[in-house]
Amino acid sequence: MAGTDHVRRMIKEGPAIVLVEPQLGENIGMVARAMANFGLAELRLVNPRDGWPSEKARAAASKADHVIDGVAVFDTLPEAIADMNYVIATTARERDGFKPVRGPVEAGRILRDRFASGQKTAILFGRERFGLYNEEVGLADEIVTFPVNPAFASLNIAQAVLLMSYEWMKSGLESETATPFSGPQMKPAPKAALQGLFDHLEQALSARGYFRPPAKKPKMVDNLRAVLTRPAFAEAEIKVLRGIVASLDYFSPKEPRGAAYPDRKAKADAKAHSAQEPDGE
Amino acid sequence: MAGTDHVRRMIKEGPAIVLVEPQLGENIGMVARAMANFGLAELRLVNPRDGWPSEKARAAASKADHVIDGVAVFDTLPEAIADMNYVIATTARERDGFKPVRGPVEAGRILRDRFASGQKTAILFGRERFGLYNEEVGLADEIVTFPVNPAFASLNIAQAVLLMSYEWMKSGLESETATPFSGPQMKPAPKAALQGLFDHLEQALSARGYFRPPAKKPKMVDNLRAVLTRPAFAEAEIKVLRGIVASLDYFSPKEPRGAAYPDRKAKADAKAHSAQEPDGE
Repeated sequence: MAGTDHVRRMIKEGPAIVLVEPQLGENIGMVARAMANFGLAELRLVNPRDGWPSEKARAAASKADHVIDGVAVFDTLPEAIADMNYVIATTARERDGFKPVRGPVEAGRILRDRFASGQKTAILFGRERFGLYNEEVGLADEIVTFPVNPAFASLNIAQAVLLMSYEWMKSGLESETATPFSGPQMKPAPKAALQGLFDHLEQALSARGYFRPPAKKPKMVDNLRAVLTRPAFAEAEIKVLRGIVASLDYFSPKEPRGAAYPDRKAKADAKAHSAQEPDGE
Repeated sequence: MAGTDHVRRMIKEGPAIVLVEPQLGENIGMVARAMANFGLAELRLVNPRDGWPSEKARAAASKADHVIDGVAVFDTLPEAIADMNYVIATTARERDGFKPVRGPVEAGRILRDRFASGQKTAILFGRERFGLYNEEVGLADEIVTFPVNPAFASLNIAQAVLLMSYEWMKSGLESETATPFSGPQMKPAPKAALQGLFDHLEQALSARGYFRPPAKKPKMVDNLRAVLTRPAFAEAEIKVLRGIVASLDYFSPKEPRGAAYPDRKAKADAKAHSAQEPDGE
């Protein structure tokens, strides 16, 4: 059925999240919700304390029903990871042993590389209070731990799943600065547009006696131009500034721009219109 | 007082987290807890719906009391960010306007650079249901958005704070693969140690008629050595393997290692002892 196929397609989209003996249905739901934000859909539970299915889990999962619908339940951890090629276990505290330790960024990349080469991967998360037992960590290939402040480390399971799912999503972006949408193009305007702004502004200021005494004018022009150059205004921004200067220059509170002064308005509009359309780029 | 000084020191440790009209005290507490995990301590609230202080917030904050104790409350957003040099606003949906849009990694780095140069920074988070209004985003310098799956985007405030706090922490690490603790050194053993393993193993297998027929021996030795070379065993791991080979070679189920066979035990121990201490590195 289309719905199941959709779930199957989603389930193939990354590492499985495996919760070992989760205690609260609500936490399972929050895990599902965290996963869905970042494109993960395969959730496996090992011996959940309150059994399965769980209405509390479904309620806490909010829109992530597809994850809840696809949950697989196992009696033991070896059974839950029997088909996996690579398993990484989340731990907060140091363990003895031979397991390599990764940070989440590195773990995300490892999981992505293995996924790209067709391997089945899983991330293990432990019990709310006790995490994973050493023998359970022993079943994994590597360990991932988060760079938390040791004095206040209190990540819960859903938060740990969120961070790992986030790093999984990031590992698949074409660049780590990619965003779902971008801001406007902010290429600095060509210098002619900037010069046009300077010309108009300096003319309007000159007419009002701003550059006094005359000996100070070169320095004042320098400063003004420096202030208006450093922001690297884009063309769209220069247009806004030109409109501001035109308004200050052509109108006054006594004769504001408006229908009551049609001749003046038309004249100023024409002047402003030509000012706001600089040549070039 | 020492406690307040401690809070003050912590508060200077990074961007302020600003919640605009948070509705639930519990969410404020979860935000505090998320912050504490990653070393942030300065929390500002703008017009919290249920006022302040909040016992629900303190309860949900768990160990992050110091954050709750340091909360500052403001009536309006401009007042809350009056002292800030740089403000970044979290949004889920695209907005019109001139604001640059960053991903969380980039935002973390920007915040770290500005912090390092002594600037005061803040990250804005909006209401549970409605996020930030356009005019509130307008008060910020830039926008940060998370790379969520648009079909299932449902990050709540505490999760968004967690991700930004996490990226803040990461931006301060010496490398993005740094972890609070590391695994054991896994430098591959020097080749002499590997050769010692091969020699013992091949001798033990030869004595048992493994390499048959004789024409196949070179290839079988090749395969065996390739299998034991690819894992790049460290010296500690070679020692474990040498012990395994010694056990299989010197003992049998009929005559296991133990007090009942003192002479054999002493001889085997001596042999195993010299086998487990390879020269070099």
